[in-house]
Amino acid sequence: MRLSRYFLPVLKENPAEAQIVSHRLMLRAGMIKQQAAGIYSWLPLGLKVLKRIEQIVHEEQGRAGHIPLLMPTLQPADLWRESGRYDDYGEEMLRITDRHKRDMLYGPTNEEMITDIFRAHVNSYKDLPLTLYQIQWKFRDEIRPRFGVMRGREFLMKDGYNFDLTREDALHAYNRHLVSYLRTYERMGLQAIPMRADSGPIGGEDTHEFLVLAETGESEVFYDSAITDLRFGDRAIDYDDPAACRAVLDEFTSRYARTDETHDEALFNQIPEERRRSARGIEVGQIFYFGTKYSEPMGATVVGPDGARVPVHMGSHGIGVSRLLGAIIEASHDERGIIWPEGVTPFHVGLVNLKQGDPSTDSACEALERELRARGLEVLYDDRDERAGAKFATMDLIGLPWRITVGPRGLASNVVELTSRRSGESLELPPAQAVERLAAIYAPVFDAGWRP
Amino acid sequence: MRLSRYFLPVLKENPAEAQIVSHRLMLRAGMIKQQAAGIYSWLPLGLKVLKRIEQIVHEEQGRAGHIPLLMPTLQPADLWRESGRYDDYGEEMLRITDRHKRDMLYGPTNEEMITDIFRAHVNSYKDLPLTLYQIQWKFRDEIRPRFGVMRGREFLMKDGYNFDLTREDALHAYNRHLVSYLRTYERMGLQAIPMRADSGPIGGEDTHEFLVLAETGESEVFYDSAITDLRFGDRAIDYDDPAACRAVLDEFTSRYARTDETHDEALFNQIPEERRRSARGIEVGQIFYFGTKYSEPMGATVVGPDGARVPVHMGSHGIGVSRLLGAIIEASHDERGIIWPEGVTPFHVGLVNLKQGDPSTDSACEALERELRARGLEVLYDDRDERAGAKFATMDLIGLPWRITVGPRGLASNVVELTSRRSGESLELPPAQAVERLAAIYAPVFDAGWRP
Repeated sequence: MRLSRYFLPVLKENPAEAQIVSHRLMLRAGMIKQQAAGIYSWLPLGLKVLKRIEQIVHEEQGRAGHIPLLMPTLQPADLWRESGRYDDYGEEMLRITDRHKRDMLYGPTNEEMITDIFRAHVNSYKDLPLTLYQIQWKFRDEIRPRFGVMRGREFLMKDGYNFDLTREDALHAYNRHLVSYLRTYERMGLQAIPMRADSGPIGGEDTHEFLVLAETGESEVFYDSAITDLRFGDRAIDYDDPAACRAVLDEFTSRYARTDETHDEALFNQIPEERRRSARGIEVGQIFYFGTKYSEPMGATVVGPDGARVPVHMGSHGIGVSRLLGAIIEASHDERGIIWPEGVTPFHVGLVNLKQGDPSTDSACEALERELRARGLEVLYDDRDERAGAKFATMDLIGLPWRITVGPRGLASNVVELTSRRSGESLELPPAQAVERLAAIYAPVFDAGWRP
Repeated sequence: MRLSRYFLPVLKENPAEAQIVSHRLMLRAGMIKQQAAGIYSWLPLGLKVLKRIEQIVHEEQGRAGHIPLLMPTLQPADLWRESGRYDDYGEEMLRITDRHKRDMLYGPTNEEMITDIFRAHVNSYKDLPLTLYQIQWKFRDEIRPRFGVMRGREFLMKDGYNFDLTREDALHAYNRHLVSYLRTYERMGLQAIPMRADSGPIGGEDTHEFLVLAETGESEVFYDSAITDLRFGDRAIDYDDPAACRAVLDEFTSRYARTDETHDEALFNQIPEERRRSARGIEVGQIFYFGTKYSEPMGATVVGPDGARVPVHMGSHGIGVSRLLGAIIEASHDERGIIWPEGVTPFHVGLVNLKQGDPSTDSACEALERELRARGLEVLYDDRDERAGAKFATMDLIGLPWRITVGPRGLASNVVELTSRRSGESLELPPAQAVERLAAIYAPVFDAGWRP
């Protein structure tokens, strides 16, 4: 993409309304624009990151055997009357009346609707296990939306629902989600720690939240510092193997890690003092097992092996897709701007032309752009007639992890400069080697992908 | 994908509520489920086709140099008060009040919001031309939603907006959209004819609708039959070249083709009688040029080359993404079910195991599945323990364009059967040759793709 043809409205000034760094940087980098309190447009750069995050979530859901569908944003109120949540949900639910005076709502979550789909179409235990999920816009009418996309009203969420014959099968689904979430967050360059939490309005007995440690997090968390040494990494796992999934759950939840909702001072004090940590965290996901809480009142039953109808055991599992952009930036930035992890960066590399209009510099840039694209790398080529300093400042602000700088002086000795956004270190090397180097850097990112 | 692990709730009976064939087949093939009048869930098979259509739209927009962003579904009413459309729009606009009693609406279209984004961020003619687009859910509170996704209330639409300094530049954007739409529909296996139409509530002087001929179409259309011989095909075109785009517009609009809104009997009668056609059509897209209709009242101006501020010239351009599924099925089905064009089929090939549980048949199927996937082909493998007839009926209903049938008798002489859904013709050939054949069939589909 040529910057001269792109729409990247970066701001020079710090926007007054932004209280936290991710909100400030998303506005400054031209990623979002507020349209109403807690409601944002995703400008091109923001949308690109959102799509990368969505893609990783889809791939990891697919790898775990979960099936995507898409439910509408608007739902009939009657479904929520069946579960009893229509009256319980309170003012965060946006209630709507259509032209025929029917009560509708903008879905804040979808347990009722997915249960309705299940009961309409599934009849036998032979069709289980089944996990359906979607990535869809939700609305919660927060009384005080703030922190940009971190606590917006219209937000994008992955919500998945498992249907199982027995409690044991449903707990395997729970564990399978925990494993797939660990992979998901790590591919985004995040450490998200599963912590025992409270189930809130979803209900149920078992629940873990995934938290990213950050000073600006809204949750207070308590944990054993040993947990931050754990990585899922690139282990192969058979998602159909209950023992294998259970072992990962045990590994990642055997250390003390809780939000303040479930914090237990006595248990916490049993950790050796030097490993006790209290900090702040951003919630980026949550998994629930809630058994028959929805299937019983809504009649979502299957015929079991013995011919008797039984309500299915369910759980729901969410990832805050749009809020992840905020969480990643909170965890990865410096005073000059964002630093995208390679897995989610909007462009793989920024290309800076130091002497726009100089034929040999222009053509060297164009050749690099072509060769990088041929390797599957997306390039943002700053082809504007601007000072080098302004071009560098823009690239630093928007946080592309790698930059190639091309100027007549370097080209005279057949070198360009490859710069790491994170370390600031630069390397002079011939253009073809810069391409090779970048292809090698991104190979693990591409290899981590999954195809149906 | 193994059918035993998929969620494909096909219906045996014809659903009573469906009046037209596409609605009936989408319900029967387990593609959609109605959740309220005109509001649908997209079950896994339906979502896969929706995503293929979205992908083609994105690629063709990218090829034309248009930039994606994403606006929220909910909008503040105040924006629409600026353009005067808040009061004009009538009951099709879903009006919403939030907990703080602010007037909101569920966007039926986005001229106001995109103009707001533009005026906030663009200041100079040097940043033009600019075309921004999104693919986002919209809501129109139709008084009588019907025909399934063809006339739903919550629907997915691509809406794009061009911003240009002059009328001439904006007309180039109009022509560019016409060209890109021709490519877009052809990649979906559709002939969509641009017809002179009426601008309706969007406003403006120039507008063409794209219509797919089908008996169930809601529009009456009149055209010169010579127009149906035109194909855009795989021509290369430079979207930056106004003359090249204009020539395509001239070619595709010089024959008489109008909807009843603009039909002119006297002009129509000048066509030789044997080429005069009146028929019904489904509207799948529309392009508009409306000049400064929104930029003037909303103050979307740029500083021109002479230093004076001028309102920008705009147009908007829509593709009915979700309704396209209905249009494609109306245009491509038979008495046994859907026949997907290769460009949008949810799976590239169906694999039918005639003797599930027989070790050598099972392993031949698994090997085929692996080899097809290695060629980038998505396979729906019917691994259920079902009669052959039931498996064939399901494959015919859901409309995968190609089927491979594997049974012990064929395997004894090292052949499988490759069957075309459209012609019904079958060919016996060794498994490896079936893979080669399919890879060759889909090569043009993959080659038509575009990458940023």
